Amino acid sequence: MGELVRTEISKIPYLHIFGRTGRCKQPLPLFFNGSGIEVKVTGSELWIEIDTDCDNMEVWVAGEINGALISRQMVMPGKQKICLFRSQEPTEAKTVRFYRELQATSENETTYLTVESLLSDGEFLKTDDYPLKLEFIGDSITSGEGTYGSLADTVWVSMYMSASVNYATMVSKELHADYQLFSQGGWGVYCGWDNDMRHNIPSHYEKVCALTQCKKNIDMGAHEDYDFAYQPDVIVINLGTNDNTAFDQPEFTDPVTGVVHKQHRNVDGTYDKDDIAAVKKAVYDFVTMLRKHHPGSHIVWCYGMLGYALTPVITEAINDYRKNTGDNNVAFINLPNTLEGEYGSHMHPGYKSHKKAAKVLVDYIKQVME
Amino acid sequence: MGELVRTEISKIPYLHIFGRTGRCKQPLPLFFNGSGIEVKVTGSELWIEIDTDCDNMEVWVAGEINGALISRQMVMPGKQKICLFRSQEPTEAKTVRFYRELQATSENETTYLTVESLLSDGEFLKTDDYPLKLEFIGDSITSGEGTYGSLADTVWVSMYMSASVNYATMVSKELHADYQLFSQGGWGVYCGWDNDMRHNIPSHYEKVCALTQCKKNIDMGAHEDYDFAYQPDVIVINLGTNDNTAFDQPEFTDPVTGVVHKQHRNVDGTYDKDDIAAVKKAVYDFVTMLRKHHPGSHIVWCYGMLGYALTPVITEAINDYRKNTGDNNVAFINLPNTLEGEYGSHMHPGYKSHKKAAKVLVDYIKQVME
Amino acid sequence: MGELVRTEISKIPYLHIFGRTGRCKQPLPLFFNGSGIEVKVTGSELWIEIDTDCDNMEVWVAGEINGALISRQMVMPGKQKICLFRSQEPTEAKTVRFYRELQATSENETTYLTVESLLSDGEFLKTDDYPLKLEFIGDSITSGEGTYGSLADTVWVSMYMSASVNYATMVSKELHADYQLFSQGGWGVYCGWDNDMRHNIPSHYEKVCALTQCKKNIDMGAHEDYDFAYQPDVIVINLGTNDNTAFDQPEFTDPVTGVVHKQHRNVDGTYDKDDIAAVKKAVYDFVTMLRKHHPGSHIVWCYGMLGYALTPVITEAINDYRKNTGDNNVAFINLPNTLEGEYGSHMHPGYKSHKKAAKVLVDYIKQVME
Amino acid sequence: MGELVRTEISKIPYLHIFGRTGRCKQPLPLFFNGSGIEVKVTGSELWIEIDTDCDNMEVWVAGEINGALISRQMVMPGKQKICLFRSQEPTEAKTVRFYRELQATSENETTYLTVESLLSDGEFLKTDDYPLKLEFIGDSITSGEGTYGSLADTVWVSMYMSASVNYATMVSKELHADYQLFSQGGWGVYCGWDNDMRHNIPSHYEKVCALTQCKKNIDMGAHEDYDFAYQPDVIVINLGTNDNTAFDQPEFTDPVTGVVHKQHRNVDGTYDKDDIAAVKKAVYDFVTMLRKHHPGSHIVWCYGMLGYALTPVITEAINDYRKNTGDNNVAFINLPNTLEGEYGSHMHPGYKSHKKAAKVLVDYIKQVME
Repeated sequence: MGELVRTEISKIPYLHIFGRTGRCKQPLPLFFNGSGIEVKVTGSELWIEIDTDCDNMEVWVAGEINGALISRQMVMPGKQKICLFRSQEPTEAKTVRFYRELQATSENETTYLTVESLLSDGEFLKTDDYPLKLEFIGDSITSGEGTYGSLADTVWVSMYMSASVNYATMVSKELHADYQLFSQGGWGVYCGWDNDMRHNIPSHYEKVCALTQCKKNIDMGAHEDYDFAYQPDVIVINLGTNDNTAFDQPEFTDPVTGVVHKQHRNVDGTYDKDDIAAVKKAVYDFVTMLRKHHPGSHIVWCYGMLGYALTPVITEAINDYRKNTGDNNVAFINLPNTLEGEYGSHMHPGYKSHKKAAKVLVDYIKQVME
Repeated sequence: MGELVRTEISKIPYLHIFGRTGRCKQPLPLFFNGSGIEVKVTGSELWIEIDTDCDNMEVWVAGEINGALISRQMVMPGKQKICLFRSQEPTEAKTVRFYRELQATSENETTYLTVESLLSDGEFLKTDDYPLKLEFIGDSITSGEGTYGSLADTVWVSMYMSASVNYATMVSKELHADYQLFSQGGWGVYCGWDNDMRHNIPSHYEKVCALTQCKKNIDMGAHEDYDFAYQPDVIVINLGTNDNTAFDQPEFTDPVTGVVHKQHRNVDGTYDKDDIAAVKKAVYDFVTMLRKHHPGSHIVWCYGMLGYALTPVITEAINDYRKNTGDNNVAFINLPNTLEGEYGSHMHPGYKSHKKAAKVLVDYIKQVME
Repeated sequence: MGELVRTEISKIPYLHIFGRTGRCKQPLPLFFNGSGIEVKVTGSELWIEIDTDCDNMEVWVAGEINGALISRQMVMPGKQKICLFRSQEPTEAKTVRFYRELQATSENETTYLTVESLLSDGEFLKTDDYPLKLEFIGDSITSGEGTYGSLADTVWVSMYMSASVNYATMVSKELHADYQLFSQGGWGVYCGWDNDMRHNIPSHYEKVCALTQCKKNIDMGAHEDYDFAYQPDVIVINLGTNDNTAFDQPEFTDPVTGVVHKQHRNVDGTYDKDDIAAVKKAVYDFVTMLRKHHPGSHIVWCYGMLGYALTPVITEAINDYRKNTGDNNVAFINLPNTLEGEYGSHMHPGYKSHKKAAKVLVDYIKQVME
Repeated sequence: MGELVRTEISKIPYLHIFGRTGRCKQPLPLFFNGSGIEVKVTGSELWIEIDTDCDNMEVWVAGEINGALISRQMVMPGKQKICLFRSQEPTEAKTVRFYRELQATSENETTYLTVESLLSDGEFLKTDDYPLKLEFIGDSITSGEGTYGSLADTVWVSMYMSASVNYATMVSKELHADYQLFSQGGWGVYCGWDNDMRHNIPSHYEKVCALTQCKKNIDMGAHEDYDFAYQPDVIVINLGTNDNTAFDQPEFTDPVTGVVHKQHRNVDGTYDKDDIAAVKKAVYDFVTMLRKHHPGSHIVWCYGMLGYALTPVITEAINDYRKNTGDNNVAFINLPNTLEGEYGSHMHPGYKSHKKAAKVLVDYIKQVME
C-alpha cells in the first residue's frame, strides 16, 4: 500500500456526481437517494470521508465496485471515514460508486449527508461516459420504500428505503445511464396520501432540494433555485399513488394555516368531480413545468405499480396537454401492478416488482431513444 | 371397453360450450379460436365426430384432459372421428376439452368446423361451473398468431395461430373462467393494418360471426344477429395495434366500391388530426356498442403488447366516454410490451409475452372482481 | 401448389433418420420414442404416409417445423396420410421433423408405426449436419412418462409419454445433436420395478428392438442383432430408479418359468447384501456391454431424477469398472431430484424437471466434448 | 427512545449463537463466516459492541431484521458500536441476526472479531427454536467466495466472500435450521489447491478454530479441542474441488519442513494411482472422524459446483466406508455444476449457482429428515 493522499471531493479529477446539487460543491451534499459519486481509481485502497447527522431518520449509504453492490450500511452522526476498498491490486483501475440510500427526508431539520474528501494511494482516471441521461420523479416507490426488510416489517424507518434495490437504479444500470432521483414517500402530484396539501412534488421541484429543512443543507443551497443544467433525455414521473389514497383518508388540517383539506368520493365511490379535476390540473401543470425546464426531454408518466385507479385522470391530463400544446414528446404508460409474492416490506413493491417495472421501462426507453 | 354409443352433440348432457354460437346447435359450429366443448365423462374411451373443410387456411384443433393440453393437430376436409382418449380407467371421470385453434378466418369461403357428435362408453356428468365469465376481443395477438412456430417462420399460415398458447386462455384457466374470443388478425378498431376500412372489428361484432364468408357457416347462422345471451363479467379489448400500423402503410383501394383510404402522418411524423380523430371515435363508439349489449360488464381496453403508440388516443376516447356517460365501469391498462427473447414466429408475441400479459390481466381482473 | 409427388421413404434424398432401425428401410419402422425422420424441403405442401396399429397402447406422433413443435396427435390403426405443412411459401426450405412419441411398448403384440412415403410438391435438400451424436438409455423418465397430462392423471396410458417434452430431446436440440433413445417404463438395469427379472434393459439392448412383440415389427427385423453402426459420442444411461423400487414391491413369479424373484431389504431397511450386489453386477456388466459395442463413446450414468437411493451401488460399480479396466471414459453424475411443483402426471418428472436435468446434461456434455 | 442499557453478550437472555465457539464466551469470538448471534428484542433501538482487527483481510459483517438482510459492511480495527436498528416501534419484537461474512482466514495473525455487548432499550425475549441442526464443511464455495463482486473482479480480497449470499445460509433459512460453517478457501480434504499439504480441512477440524493464527483468537480458545456439543442432524461436506486443482498445479515446498509435495497426473491425463488413492483415503478418514464426533448425524458429501472430476474417487471412498463399517447414514450427491451466467466474481459460483445448489440440498435434507 502506498501512502494515502486526501483530496477534497471538489478537487477529485474526473469525479462523476449523481443527483442534483446546488452551488456548494465542497463539501458535496448528497440530498436524494441515488445521489452519489463515482470515480475510477487505481491503488490498493480508497476511503471516503463523509459528514452526517440525523434524528430519527438516519442516513444509509451503499458502495459498489465495478457495478456490483458490495456494502450497505447505516451511518451515525459525525464526520467519519468509510473504507470503500482495500488490499486491491494497485495497478488495476476500479470503478467505485458511493451513494445515499435514503430519500431527501422532507421536513427533517437534522438529517444531512456530505462528502468531504477521498483518500487514495492511486490515481484518478477518466470515468465511464454516460451518454444517456435519465431523471426519475416519484413517491415512496421511487424512494425504494419496502425494497429492504421482510414482508412482516411495517414500521416506517429509513432502513427499508433504498436506491440500491430500486427500479430507477436498475433501469439506469441496464441502459448504462446517468440518472437523478427526486422522490418523497407519501407525496403526490397534487397532495399527500393524508390530504396534506403541502406534500405535492411540483411545489418543491424548482428548488435544489426544498424537501429538506435541515439548516446545514439550506446553507449549502438546498432551498435555492435549481439550475436545471442537467438535461435528461428521458424524465420518468411515477406519481399518483398517494393522490389516490388521499380520497380514502380523513381530512387534514394544515398546522400552520389551519386550512382543512380533503379529497372526496361521491356516495357511489367515484371521485368527486372537483377534487379529481384538481388532480388532473396538477398533472397538467407539472408536465408544463417540466417542459419549461427541459425543452428536449421525453417525458413519460408511469403509473400502476400499486394499482391503476388514477389511470383515467392522468391520461386525460397528458392527452389534454398534448392536444393543447401540440407537444407530443410526452407519454403515458402503465407499469405492471405489484402481484402477490412481489411485495417487500411495508406493503410496498419489493425486489421482484421493481425488477419487472425496470424491464418495461428499459424496453420503453430503448424504443424512445431509437 | 364397453360399447361406444354415439350421441349427437346437442343431446350431450351437461355439455359446456365455449365461444359464440348462433341458432344452429346440431351440428355445433366452432367459429372462433377458443370455441369448443367441454364434457366430464367416465368410460374408457371418448371420440369426437367433426366435419371440416378448408382451402389454404386449414383448421387446427386442440384437446385437453383434466386441464392439460394433450394434442394439437391439423384437420383435413371431411367428416371424421378423432379419439380424445382411450384405455382410461372406466369408472374415473375425465374432464375433456376440445377446441378450435384457428381464428374465424375472415373472407374465407370454405373454412368451417362443426362438432357432430361424441362417441363414448361412459356417462356424462355435470361439468365444472365457471362462475366467472370473460370475453376477449382482439386482433392477431388474441388470435395467438406467432404462438407456435420458430422465430424464423414468417409465412402467414394457420398453423402458427392458436388458442392453446394464448394469454386469453391462460387468464381464463388461471381464473377458472368461462371465456369467448372474438379476434381477427390484421384488423383494427377503425381499419385494418393495410388501411382496408372493412377490416374493423366493431362492424362485425353484432353478428354471430360475420367474419366468415363460408356458405355452410352462414347457413348455420353465422351472419345473423348475435343474441348476447352470454354476459361476461369482464370484457377485455386488445385492439389498436393494426390501427397504428395503417399510418405507415400505403393507401388501400376497396375492390368493391373503389373507395381509397389511407391514414396519414404529418411531415413531422405525428398523426394527421382527422385520421387519428377517426380512430378515437371508433374506440368511443365501440365501447358504446359493447356497453349497449353488456350493461353489467366491466370493460377494459388493453394495449401495448406490440408497442404503446396509440395509448394517447385510446385513453382519450375512454376518458371521454367515462366523462360523457358517467359510466366508470370502463378502464384502460397497458399490457407490457413484447421484449427481445419473448417473440414467437412471424414477429408476434410468443409464449413468454403471452404469459407476462396473462399475469397482468389475472391480477387486474382479480381486483376488479373483488 | 404444385402437384404432389409420392416418394417412398427409402428413396427420399438426404433423409435423416433418428433412432435405431434394422435392415428394413421400406417401410421405415419407428420403434422407439424419438425415432423419426427429418427432411429439408421446399414446396408449399408436405404429407407423410404412415401405417400403424395398436391395441390399448396407441401410437402418438409429433411434428416440428424449423425446430418448433407444431403438432402432437394420436394415430389410429391403418395406413394414412398426415399433412406436415401446407400453404407455405414454395421456394423456401423448411426443415421438418416427424417422430414417434410413444416408447417401444414391451411385450405388445400389436403396436407398430412405419413411415411409408412422403408426398411433396417441392425438392428435398441436404439436411443439417449433426456432428455430435448422443444416445440415451433409460426407463419411464426417458420415455417421457408424465411429461403430458395433469398432476391428477395417474392412469398408465400412452398419451402421457413423449419425446417432445423430454430431457433427451432438449439436450439434443440444445447441442444440435443427433440422438437415439432406448427406454422402457418400469424397467431397470437388473430387474423391473415389480421384481420381474425379464424387465432389464441390458438383455434387450443388443437386438434392434427386442422390446416389441409385434409380428410386423419382428418381420421388419426388430428382433435381429443391432449393427451398432451408430456410434454416439456420448451415451447417457438413466437407469436404477426401478431397481430401487423393486426392493419395496412383492415378489414376482415369472409366468413362463414359474421362477419367483424378489429384491429384499434387511429388517433395518438396508438392502440385502446379495440382492444389491446383483444390481451392482448388472451395472458393471451393462457398462462392459456398452463399451464393447461403442469403443470410443463417453459413457455417463445419470441418476437422481426420482431420488438418490441407488447412488452408492451405481457409483461402486462404475468405480470398480474404471479401476479394473483402466477405462476412465466412464462417469457418474447425479441429475437433480424432481422437486415439488416440478412433477407432471403419474408422479413422474414434468416439464420443469426435464428442463432442469437437460441443463445439467448440456453443460456436462459440453465439458466432455471440449 | 428509552435509555440504552449495555449488557455483556454473555449475559443476554435467550441469546442464540450461530457457529462454533470455544470456552471464551465473554467477549464472544466469531471465528467463521456465518458465525453470529441472534436475539429477539423489543425497544426502539439496538446496538452491538464489537472489537476487531485485521491486516490485509478485514472483517465484513452482515445484519438482518426479521430474516431479511439489511446491512453488509466492512469493519475497521478497533472496539466500536454498530447500530442494528433504531426508531422502531418499541413494543414490537424484532428478531435480529448479526454475523460474520468473512471465513476464518487461515494463517492470519491479526484478524479477529468479537462481540462484546448489546445496548438496548428493550427486553430480550425467547428466540425462535431451530429444531433442525445443520453443519456445512467446505472450501471457497462454502466461504461464499465470489458471491459479491462483479464477474470482472478477480482479486482475492475479503469483500467478495460472504455468508449472506451462500447456499449454506439459504438452505438453513429455508429449512428454518440452526447451522455452523467450517470452510476455508483453497483448502481440500487432502491438500490445498497449490499442493500445500497443510491445507487440508480434517487436520484442523477437531480444534475450535485452528485455522486462525491470531493470538487474540488463540487466547480465546481457538486452538483448543472443540467439544462437539453441537450435534447436527445433517453434515454437508462440500470438499474436493481444490484436491482436483492440485493435480494441475506445480509442486509445493513446505516453508517449514522443506518437504515438497505434488499430486501427479499420468501422461494420459489420468490421476497418478498413489496420489488419487491418498485423496480417497483422506475422504474415508474424514468421514470416519466426523462419525466419531457425530454418531447420529446424517453425513452427505456434496460435490460438483465447480466440476465433477473427483466424483469417482469420492464415491469410492464413501462406498468403501459404508461397506466396511455398515454405516449407511453416509451418502454422496452431486450438486449441479455452475453454468455460464451463474458465476459471480473470481470465477466462483455466484448467486444463481448458490440458489440452485440450495434447492437441491433443501430437497435432499427434507427427504433425509422424513
